[in-house]
Amino acid sequence: MSIKQFEKLALIGLGLLGSSISLAARKSNCVRMISGADHNTTTRATALSLGLVDTVHEHPADAVEDADLVILCVPVGCFRSVAKSISSRLKVGAIVSDVGSVKSSVVMDVMPQLPEGIHFVPAHPIAGTERSGPESGFAALFDGKWCILTPTDATESAAVASVTAFWQLLGSNVQVMSAAHHDLVLAITSHLPHLIAYNIVTTADHLERISNAEVIKYSAGGFRDFTRIAASDPTMWRDIFLKNKEAVLEMLGRFTEDLTDLQRAIRYGDGDRMFQIFNKSRKIRQGIIAAGQDADVADFGRSSHQS
Amino acid sequence: MSIKQFEKLALIGLGLLGSSISLAARKSNCVRMISGADHNTTTRATALSLGLVDTVHEHPADAVEDADLVILCVPVGCFRSVAKSISSRLKVGAIVSDVGSVKSSVVMDVMPQLPEGIHFVPAHPIAGTERSGPESGFAALFDGKWCILTPTDATESAAVASVTAFWQLLGSNVQVMSAAHHDLVLAITSHLPHLIAYNIVTTADHLERISNAEVIKYSAGGFRDFTRIAASDPTMWRDIFLKNKEAVLEMLGRFTEDLTDLQRAIRYGDGDRMFQIFNKSRKIRQGIIAAGQDADVADFGRSSHQS
Repeated sequence: MSIKQFEKLALIGLGLLGSSISLAARKSNCVRMISGADHNTTTRATALSLGLVDTVHEHPADAVEDADLVILCVPVGCFRSVAKSISSRLKVGAIVSDVGSVKSSVVMDVMPQLPEGIHFVPAHPIAGTERSGPESGFAALFDGKWCILTPTDATESAAVASVTAFWQLLGSNVQVMSAAHHDLVLAITSHLPHLIAYNIVTTADHLERISNAEVIKYSAGGFRDFTRIAASDPTMWRDIFLKNKEAVLEMLGRFTEDLTDLQRAIRYGDGDRMFQIFNKSRKIRQGIIAAGQDADVADFGRSSHQS
Repeated sequence: MSIKQFEKLALIGLGLLGSSISLAARKSNCVRMISGADHNTTTRATALSLGLVDTVHEHPADAVEDADLVILCVPVGCFRSVAKSISSRLKVGAIVSDVGSVKSSVVMDVMPQLPEGIHFVPAHPIAGTERSGPESGFAALFDGKWCILTPTDATESAAVASVTAFWQLLGSNVQVMSAAHHDLVLAITSHLPHLIAYNIVTTADHLERISNAEVIKYSAGGFRDFTRIAASDPTMWRDIFLKNKEAVLEMLGRFTEDLTDLQRAIRYGDGDRMFQIFNKSRKIRQGIIAAGQDADVADFGRSSHQS
């Protein structure tokens, strides 16, 4: 038998992230067995039939038995109760981690529930699609993506190293930072974009003189790009906004101030101000391409000339 | 010699749209010769060397001589002066059209400049990429995209039919509507999305505690999708906001109201309200996929598992 990084991995929640971790872990051959838990009967049956898990359980506590690594892949609003329910069943020396998009609240919700001898390494893989459910997962989801770890002062460095190695085996680049800084960075790079995307779709839906059919028909002009992320899982995103309230409200306040500035420029016909703002925006885009975080292809038209 | 739809096509402006029209027209073999005008010396040389035009001119007036179809492909802010400069050189019976993203202002800017015997058929192909310049054009840009025509009461139906046939030969679907309705529809499906995209990039740039390098590094969480359209041509977009001021301000006002509602839900922890809004947004996305205006692929992660 080959040596595995972990004998048993327990995945709590078998949606897009849980299923993708399973497929990536199997592909990298770094765990011997995978147990899974999900409250949804259909999800459990699907996960088992797809071979995502060796054993599947309704209750998280039954899945974590003997597990060396437990990863919480449920919406962050469920973390406190899940952590509480598994705490007495965790193996001594086990590592508990997660994939939550908010980290300060996760530390507060999970840490106090865990007994002595359990290592807690909060993690956030910056990867996802607008799809949900166990059939939406794929092994390459984490390839070349960043995974942020936010260990606390109490986290042992060996546990951090172990979780780092795990995510690297899954294809990710790993970065360590504080939970507070993570939450601020993600508020601007992920949470605010999702909020705005949901909001513009809502605004379009409210219009009296333009039908949804028309909005859909002419969505190639830019609107379409927003609907993609507005199709993300509503429960997951509700929890993110509830749990990262302060950082999101700060970014939202700044966004609104800047938007008011642009609105004034439009109202008073200040073309120079608009040009200055628009021209500067181009530079960040160039930085993203240079950093390899997006392809320099003219994808906006999603035309057939490139594939 | 085969029969062509037009003997001579004149393209005023040889950027992304002008160059793509040239390539698509050549591919469909519907014009005998193409003349082009651009104020930029390098653009003129590039257009000529790429074979986009048979003759190239600094002044629009020189390009329109003997042309059966003249298409204005410059930013809408230049329309009035360009129309004025070409009016005395237009062939009797020529059709003047355009690709402007705003239509009410274009009618007001162009119509009064044109002499008797010239047919004016305002057009807007809903197609584009975030790239600019003559080397960014490609023949397939208009394939399966909508082109909206906004003829006035004075426009002869034969001229509308002729421009309709031209865009269909280029691969587009054609829809006729009033200029006012066009401007309202595009304000929500294109102009507001671009404004918001520019704005969020601006907000990110203003942050003191997060560097642009960090924003770029973690942009895969959603931000990246916004920078794509925020990389669009700043002059073109400045002109659009100046020229479609009323409709954009109306949409912006509605957007801000809806955003305030969401902001309150976050501040007061109203998860039910958020869930309700987010859940509804999913449906418009499904409509876009059903209407064939986007592919149902999990493109958000832009991962290598699908290509």
